[in-house]
Order: sequence, then C-alpha cells, then structure tokens
Amino acid sequence: MLAFPPGCGHLCQAMTELLEPITDIQTLRRYGKVVELGRETPLMLDCGVELGPFNVAFQTFGEINAERSNAVLVCHALSGDQHVAGAHPVTGGRGWWDNMVGAGKPLDTERYYVICANVLGGCMGTAGPNQIDPKTGEVYGTNFPVVTIADMVRAQAMLLDHLGIEQVFCVIGGSMGGMQVVEWAASYPDRVFAAVPIACAARHSAQNIAFHEVGRQAIMADRDWSEGQYLDRGTVPRHGLAVARMMAHITYLSESGLSRKFGRNLQDRLTITYGFDADFQIESYLRHQGHSFVDRFDANSYLYITRAMDYFDLAKANGGELSAAFAGSSTKFCVISFTSDWLFPTPGNQEIVHALTAVAANVSFVEIETDKGHDSFLLDEPDFHAALVGFLDGAAAHRGFASR
Amino acid sequence: MLAFPPGCGHLCQAMTELLEPITDIQTLRRYGKVVELGRETPLMLDCGVELGPFNVAFQTFGEINAERSNAVLVCHALSGDQHVAGAHPVTGGRGWWDNMVGAGKPLDTERYYVICANVLGGCMGTAGPNQIDPKTGEVYGTNFPVVTIADMVRAQAMLLDHLGIEQVFCVIGGSMGGMQVVEWAASYPDRVFAAVPIACAARHSAQNIAFHEVGRQAIMADRDWSEGQYLDRGTVPRHGLAVARMMAHITYLSESGLSRKFGRNLQDRLTITYGFDADFQIESYLRHQGHSFVDRFDANSYLYITRAMDYFDLAKANGGELSAAFAGSSTKFCVISFTSDWLFPTPGNQEIVHALTAVAANVSFVEIETDKGHDSFLLDEPDFHAALVGFLDGAAAHRGFASR
Repeated sequence: MLAFPPGCGHLCQAMTELLEPITDIQTLRRYGKVVELGRETPLMLDCGVELGPFNVAFQTFGEINAERSNAVLVCHALSGDQHVAGAHPVTGGRGWWDNMVGAGKPLDTERYYVICANVLGGCMGTAGPNQIDPKTGEVYGTNFPVVTIADMVRAQAMLLDHLGIEQVFCVIGGSMGGMQVVEWAASYPDRVFAAVPIACAARHSAQNIAFHEVGRQAIMADRDWSEGQYLDRGTVPRHGLAVARMMAHITYLSESGLSRKFGRNLQDRLTITYGFDADFQIESYLRHQGHSFVDRFDANSYLYITRAMDYFDLAKANGGELSAAFAGSSTKFCVISFTSDWLFPTPGNQEIVHALTAVAANVSFVEIETDKGHDSFLLDEPDFHAALVGFLDGAAAHRGFASR
Repeated sequence: MLAFPPGCGHLCQAMTELLEPITDIQTLRRYGKVVELGRETPLMLDCGVELGPFNVAFQTFGEINAERSNAVLVCHALSGDQHVAGAHPVTGGRGWWDNMVGAGKPLDTERYYVICANVLGGCMGTAGPNQIDPKTGEVYGTNFPVVTIADMVRAQAMLLDHLGIEQVFCVIGGSMGGMQVVEWAASYPDRVFAAVPIACAARHSAQNIAFHEVGRQAIMADRDWSEGQYLDRGTVPRHGLAVARMMAHITYLSESGLSRKFGRNLQDRLTITYGFDADFQIESYLRHQGHSFVDRFDANSYLYITRAMDYFDLAKANGGELSAAFAGSSTKFCVISFTSDWLFPTPGNQEIVHALTAVAANVSFVEIETDKGHDSFLLDEPDFHAALVGFLDGAAAHRGFASR
C-alpha cells in the first residue's frame, strides 16, 4: 500500500495501512492509528541502515483547521507512547499527559489538532524491536537497527508529510520529548512555528548515560532476556526491566519530594520487621512502579530508547557548536525547566537558551519552582501550565489564530 | 575458647580464637586477626536474636601506648572492610583508607593505635551471611539475623573489651562508618574521647532507602541468588550484585565530577558504534566497577548491610529527639561534609551538628569544597585531611599526647 502523498490532506481516523494489515480489534485499540511509511523512499537511519517499509502508530486529538495551521506535535518521553490523553488502552488509566491535552486544557483540543506518534524503537505499534521485520517475517528483537533522536524525528516528519501538514504550529515535549523538540527545530526549522522543549538538554550527560547503562545491564543480566530474542522464546525479562524502571523512577523524583511524600514512613506496619520485605512505603511504591511497568513496556525497547538518548548530542552533530543548530531559525522557542529536576537540571536547559540567544533566535525561558523533580512536566504544576498557556496564546496570535 | 577479659591488655598480633580454629593460611591472610566473642554472654541483637559465639575479624596498625589512650577506632562503610591500610589481601591493591592511615598520615600510626573491625553482617571474617552458623554447622545465608548499626557498634565494644581498651581516643568513619561513629557516641559516651562522623546522617533518607532497595531487588532478581542459599548451591549472583554496585557507584560520585572526568568521551573508539557495547568511557568504567566488586564482596552481605543503613534512625531510637542521643556528652566532635555529596548532603550532617549544639556538646563542623561527591572521604582531599589533622592534634593535646 502506498502512503498518501504529502499535502493530500487525507485524515485517517481509522487508518490501517500496515505491513500486514492489522485486523485484530484489540491490537487496533492498543495502537490507535497505524500508517505504513517508507515503502517507496526508505528512511535512511543515522546508523546507515535503510528502514522501510515501516509502521508508525499515532493518535490525534481535536480537528485540523481549514488552513492546516493548528497542528501541535507532542513528542513523548522514554516510557511514554502515543496515548497522550483519554483512556489508555493498556493500563486502563488515563493518557500520560491527560492533564495537558483536552478541551479547555493547555493544549486545548478545541483549538489545536494534537498529534502524538509512538517513537521509532518504541513498543506501541511503531517499528521497533517488538514488531515484525517485514524482510524476515520474524520479530526484530535486537536485530532492529539502533536508532537516534534524529531518526525518530525523521520518521515523524514522514508522518506529517503523510498527514499533509507542511508546518506544525508547535512541537512540544518533555525529557526525551524535549530532545526531539530541539532536534525538530534544528532539522526542520521551516516546519516548526513554535517549539517548547521542557526538562531536557541538547546532549545527554555522563551521569544520565551512567544511569541508563545500569538499566540496560539490569535487563541484559536477566536470563529471560535470552540475548534479546525473548519474544521468540516465550520469556519476558520481568525482573531486569522492573529493576531498571525502579532505579530510573528515583531519578524522576527529587530528594526533598521523596522526603516530603514518603520520608521514613512504614508500609502497613507499626514497626520494622528486621527482614527484606518492603518495610518502608518508598520500597513498596518503587516495587509497584517496577512491576506495573513490565506489564506495559518492552524490555528491548527500553534498551533502544535509552541508547537513542545517550547518543543525543546536538552540538556535536552541528560541528561542535550548539548555536549552529539554530542559525537563521525563525521558530519561537519557550524553554522550560524545573528547580528540583536533577536528571535534566536547569543549566542543561539554559544551554539551549544560550545557544538560541547567540543566534538572536526568539526565545523565552521559564524555570518553575517545585520539589517534584523531573516528573514535574507530567504533573499539574499551575505555574508551568500558566506559562505554557501564555506562550501558546502569544504564538497563536502571531500565527493568526482566534484567541480563546 | 574464652575471650580475654576486659582490660587484660593482651595484644593479639596473630589472634586465632575461632569458633572453629582457622588454620588455613590463606584465610588468615584474608581476614587478618579473628577473635571469638559472645560465648559466655551473647550479643543481644536489636531484632531479639541472641548472637553468640561469633567471630569478629579485625586489623590493627601502630602500637598501643602505655596509658592505652591512643586507640583510634575506624568504622568502615558499606563496601569496606578491616583492611584499612597496607596491601589488601583480596584485591591486591591497597587498603581503602591507605592515604589516611600510616606513618606520617593523618591517622598517624607512629602516634595512634588504629583498629578497624569488619562489621557484623560483613563478609570478611566477622559473623555474617557468608560465615558458618556454629549452631548448625551450615553457612548462615539469609538465616543470619538482620542486624543494625547499633548491633555493629555493640560487637565493636565487645572487641574493645577484649582488647582491654576502656576508652578510644577517637572513633572515626565516613558514610555508614559515620553512622557507627554517632551511634558510638550516643551508646558509649564515656568510651569515646573524640568522634569524627564524616559524610553521613543520623538517619537514612527516603531516597537512600530507595537506592538500596533497587540494589537489593537487583540481587534477589538474579536466579543465581537461589533464595539466598547460593553458597550452598555453588552459584554466585554475579550479575545482580554487579548491577547493584554499578548503580550505587553513581551515587558515590557527582554530576559535575562525572562530567569533568568522563563527559561524553568514547572508550577506545573514534565514533559511536550504534550498539549496546560500552561506547562511552563512563559505561566501561561502571562495568569495571560492577564486575570487580563481585570478586571481593558477598551478595547477601550487601543485603544485610544496606538494610542496617536503612533502619538507622538515631533520633527515633532516642524518643524522636536527636539531641537526646547526645545529652551530657563530653566527647569532642568534628563533623565533616562535602559540598558535592548528594548521597549524604551537608544538611543531613548539619542535623547532627545542630543536635550536638542543642545540648551544648563540644562540636566543630567543616564543609569541604570539592566536586568529587560522596567518595571524597576516601580521596586525597587536602582541605579535608588538614582539617582532620588540626582537630586530632587539638584533641590529642587535651588527651595529653605528645604533639607530633
């Protein structure tokens, strides 16, 4: 099947253009919309491999306007997916940014056409290690090529071509989503009217690479990982993935936030038990985080996506000068960081601001005071939401939208 | 065999009073000196179990003076042992505080009689999960009782009784060693002339419990852990322990130190390889840390010692008021913290200072400026060593030592 040509304007509310058409209703519900891309012109990955055809799974919220000017591309983080808002088909809970996307919310679906695609290397229907390699008919596993943040963005650009959207009003995301935002602005400056990178950095730090490496080692140490071919062998590296998630989850919070929320409170007991059971609430909480993650995420995807983040270094990709990535950009930027975020601390976000300033780009910067750590970007932080709404309103006026 | 009675003054340069006498030279070299304690009067552990008889393995450096007033008790941290200085019998390297203990060094062995004992629950000859339970003749494994910091200190007090040392000139240690120092000062105020808790806290924080819990889960998730009975079954949970150590090692350093030392430097290659090999130096470094740790440390000991740290809460043990732990103390304290230590940040150390000040104890406080993180206490930090030497000189003058 051919992808729709760029600009055709075909909206695919129940799109099922697949490598092998998905007819299973449960799978369709799980993935949302799925489109096949790259059959005629494959995607040339940074690693040198040509990928195509490949699927991209995505969701949309709201309606595109007549001028096709109101698209907001949301880029998800490491453990996110395309299910930004509404009921999540796997967890049974709400989408990961349900407080942000919807009618009357900061990304107002009565005003914007919100798109979110599962990233390349993900595990929710876009090409990744848990999907079928069309060339072999087998699950990719670790035969899936290693992808980069730039590859993820290229795949999204192909999706926008397919959807007939020349320029998005705004590309927005936190954490790895923010990395995609700055990559978008650097790679496709004319296709991005406004850009909101949140709680991110233009390159992954040594400490963050270190945490990712421990997570990967935890997964690969699990015998059920089976050298990456566990889906073929019917095993799941549950323990390894749970440990990786538990450790990562600590980095998403803050010391002061943990002290305030959990402190040394005991879990359903009055005294310590002198054992290795979860005596403390924080232990019980972390175990729950680890175990529930395994039910919705693929261990190999965790390897691929953390690797993409580790490899991200936008300055290096632009001759060692971050500002060169944004030279001549007319995109309006709003960079947002959080005071207690120690995974992507404010200085790393400010590097982006400084690089933009150095090329006289249009940039504003907001640091939000909170003790909720990196995860703040997912939470109801009134100052954060207010700052974002202010920026979007101003940008929308420039773009010629009716005000709210 | 009976332990020497308190005050007998017998110095045991090749002590081999054992549950079952150790005759194997390699084991003796590994453990140093070993003494049996608690045969007549067992150690009542906090968990309610009576422990006895049990071995304590220790090392001494320097000579005790005629007044028996120059003993310095060094308390080791989570992954430390009694081999403070000189050649380490297992690693082939030097002792963990070799820059601190020796002739002409801050803990000058020409002046002080330095003692360090492997902690209860450790894996270097003191009673712990890798030792034989004298009651069953089997390796303890996870049948070893869960011990606390206070239990470790009680065992050390029994060792001092055995060595005929009524009062130590100074008790000193960093990290978990610092926890033992404050516990010593609280439990045996008359036996401690001076106390130097370094890079520690009077209670373990929620975030630190969280990191420990992840490490324990990594170990217990390893199938070779065999429900804790791996020594019987001839397996070793190498992968789990290595992952635990890798993660913990990140917390011993600092973000800025890692950036300075490793940054995004590649390991023996010019470009990234688009794979899961250790492309970055920080990955290679961490893998080495994990693998080499497994060769010298016992996985069950890791569980027990981290648990002891988690349970540590000196305020709670004193009616919720930390200062009550030190009421009436005439010990001279010097509390030392490091600016970039995010595992035991300065405010946690200052809590101890504030509690001491609240009962008009003799306390000085030094915060050392460094980017080397928690591990600074193990490193050649000139300001740290200078401050310590100054404090010790002053205290020694009060105690009536000749000046150096």
